[in-house]
Amino acid sequence: MTRFVVIGGDAAGMSAAAQVSRGVEPVEMVVFERGEFTSYAACGLPYFVGGLVEGSARLVARSPEEHRRRGVDVRTGHEVLTIDPEAREVEVRVADTGATFRQPFDHLLVATGASPIVPPFPNVDAEGISVIHTIPDAVGLEELLSHRTPRRAVVVGGGYIGVEMAEAFVLRGLDVTLIEKLDQPMATLDPDMGRRVSDAMAAMGIDVRLSTGVEAFEVDVDGRVSAVVTDRGTVPADVVVLALGVRPNVALAAAAGIEIGPTGAIGTDDTMSTSVAGIWAAGDCAQSHHRVSGRPAWVALGTHANKQGRVVGLNVSGSPARFPGVIGTAVTRVGECEIARTGLTEREATTAGFDAVAEVIQGTSRAHYYPDGAPMAVKVVAERSSGRMLGAQIVGGPEAAKRIDALAVAVWNEMTAEDFSQLDLGYAPPFSPVWDPTLIAARSASRARTR
Amino acid sequence: MTRFVVIGGDAAGMSAAAQVSRGVEPVEMVVFERGEFTSYAACGLPYFVGGLVEGSARLVARSPEEHRRRGVDVRTGHEVLTIDPEAREVEVRVADTGATFRQPFDHLLVATGASPIVPPFPNVDAEGISVIHTIPDAVGLEELLSHRTPRRAVVVGGGYIGVEMAEAFVLRGLDVTLIEKLDQPMATLDPDMGRRVSDAMAAMGIDVRLSTGVEAFEVDVDGRVSAVVTDRGTVPADVVVLALGVRPNVALAAAAGIEIGPTGAIGTDDTMSTSVAGIWAAGDCAQSHHRVSGRPAWVALGTHANKQGRVVGLNVSGSPARFPGVIGTAVTRVGECEIARTGLTEREATTAGFDAVAEVIQGTSRAHYYPDGAPMAVKVVAERSSGRMLGAQIVGGPEAAKRIDALAVAVWNEMTAEDFSQLDLGYAPPFSPVWDPTLIAARSASRARTR
Repeated sequence: MTRFVVIGGDAAGMSAAAQVSRGVEPVEMVVFERGEFTSYAACGLPYFVGGLVEGSARLVARSPEEHRRRGVDVRTGHEVLTIDPEAREVEVRVADTGATFRQPFDHLLVATGASPIVPPFPNVDAEGISVIHTIPDAVGLEELLSHRTPRRAVVVGGGYIGVEMAEAFVLRGLDVTLIEKLDQPMATLDPDMGRRVSDAMAAMGIDVRLSTGVEAFEVDVDGRVSAVVTDRGTVPADVVVLALGVRPNVALAAAAGIEIGPTGAIGTDDTMSTSVAGIWAAGDCAQSHHRVSGRPAWVALGTHANKQGRVVGLNVSGSPARFPGVIGTAVTRVGECEIARTGLTEREATTAGFDAVAEVIQGTSRAHYYPDGAPMAVKVVAERSSGRMLGAQIVGGPEAAKRIDALAVAVWNEMTAEDFSQLDLGYAPPFSPVWDPTLIAARSASRARTR
Repeated sequence: MTRFVVIGGDAAGMSAAAQVSRGVEPVEMVVFERGEFTSYAACGLPYFVGGLVEGSARLVARSPEEHRRRGVDVRTGHEVLTIDPEAREVEVRVADTGATFRQPFDHLLVATGASPIVPPFPNVDAEGISVIHTIPDAVGLEELLSHRTPRRAVVVGGGYIGVEMAEAFVLRGLDVTLIEKLDQPMATLDPDMGRRVSDAMAAMGIDVRLSTGVEAFEVDVDGRVSAVVTDRGTVPADVVVLALGVRPNVALAAAAGIEIGPTGAIGTDDTMSTSVAGIWAAGDCAQSHHRVSGRPAWVALGTHANKQGRVVGLNVSGSPARFPGVIGTAVTRVGECEIARTGLTEREATTAGFDAVAEVIQGTSRAHYYPDGAPMAVKVVAERSSGRMLGAQIVGGPEAAKRIDALAVAVWNEMTAEDFSQLDLGYAPPFSPVWDPTLIAARSASRARTR
């Protein structure tokens, strides 16, 4: 019987395991998870802190016990220390007892995830400063908010988690400052679109400080954080969240001689195989490729983790499957401001070597006469010579963000902006003006090619 | 100078005129509109009656005066009586004076729209019975609702306008009965999806009577409608709306020898040219083609009218353009129930000669732990042999309907259901579960191919 070992019991690992457990061939399978949770929704943590999710247990899609009942042998509190590709074994330490043992495998999935970046700022370990990456992180922060009732929150970093945590603190009634080193929040948007996010956050009462670098933290006599020291002055703070991005956990793979890609994540081919046959990688630790730029890409997102895990599960089960790559689609919101992107930004397109044109238009979510329509800006990036759509961005009110999906399907299929503008999309007054803003933006980008 | 004459001053006609007015070559242009309005939103009429739109003036996107200010010579109260293709002239009657004159053209656009179907039921002309097709129709009904405060409304016909009018009457506080001859409302959906709409309407308190044919109307001593007589009993009614669909207005074109297509609408090629060179057709009177079935199609929708009008305008201006056809995308809502479709239904696919498989899945609009997520059913229809997506339908709560757009772009690009299931769509807890319901439905349809 094939022996399949999975390192990491979150989205990628458990998707693979679930897929294998449904296969026709019986497989001897074990999942090692060093923490105590499986299949938890890291992307839900800001909403739990913001009070929108009742109880952290709701964030667990499937507990270890539930996985076991479905026939997946998952062992929490089990840390894999080394991978031995020649002996086809992993070395495992049991947290409870400190005992170690070796587990042989025919197939191994490395799904070790990613870890938050925490620069060595002075006093960064002070009480009241945290990252939001695991359920214990979020529970700890939530308890701090509930029991110590801090007044001033500072979020360091203006990416997805940063703006989501800023929203969470606003929902909890705190005064919120967001500090970002770059001159815009949401660096995955072009500057003109990022500015709209910045404006929307300011309108929510968030003190957005751009082009501002953190240097250190000040602590009070009890060792609790009291302020954030930046290169543009000191910001008082009762609670601080560091949202400076994540890094793929590749040490285990690298030590075993598995190739690390140029993105810093584990290199994979489109079957999600690493450079070592029979060893696979999936999820936040794994590199994939960007279908538009054609380059290696590393996007740490639950959707990709699930899909990649499934692909590994199919391949291990003997049903050949390929992960088709990513196009960098992402959505989020801060208050009523919805944010979405897909494909390449104007800046990314230029970096990738495209001669790109881009246009931004201002539209509304509904027919002009229908109540509660919201404004939105839609930007479409196209290749000048061919008109091919390279990417799109949306910043707007309610019902704006998910419009990115139609644009994503178009980018995926390499449609031209002109063809997109002629598409038969859903129209009715409560849902769209007769020309959807996405169609207008595409037409505008198409016209810009000849200017 | 080229002479361009447009018959009909609504979406298609005015889009063409606006496009021509922006062209580089000067064109001598005149638009004849027999009514008093231009560019009004017929699709907004139910929402005006429902009280969601303040004042019928808001439904006019651009008045005759505004068009004139932009350099488009539009003459309301001017009815075109005949088209003379040989002499290249139209004969026009001025409503005010009864005078007639002949207007020469080099290019002619027939944009005569469609008219509501009104079967010759006994007493169908009684007071209190109306269609909802023009602003005067809607204003008349609104005044009746405001001044006579009827209690019981009956809507005859369960298509788009029918369900929208049922919603409008609910919003106005009336007891509502919807009568439909078929065994489901929304005949453009498969029966299993139509049933969900029926259930949602019943849950709103609408008395939905299916498989019920209207035979006549009863009137009171003042000649006002008092009841609807059906083949399954009599339904008391203070106000009745007939929503039995529309028919293309083709008499003028047919009398001129212009070819009428198998759909009953004016035949066109993909430039929107009729069978007579220099005579074009666009909007609700014009036939186009269905990209999935490959057959002639007639879909009376404002989005197509605008796009087709623009194509005619470009062609008349000397910039060759083509209308790429339709795929039957449509959305609406009744109360909180959102309804969407694209491509072919299972039934339509079979009729069109496809060996089709179809699967329905039940999903939610948001991550399971995020508040206010709504259930939705998504159905995907695919070709068994190739897996190509032929169509999709959605019935669900808020944020369900516009998800059809991503599916529409996929159908347009002839993606397979398996490829769709691997797409990089926008994911974040407020917007979607980690596997969007559309992805799950596509995967499910793909798997069904091998069963």
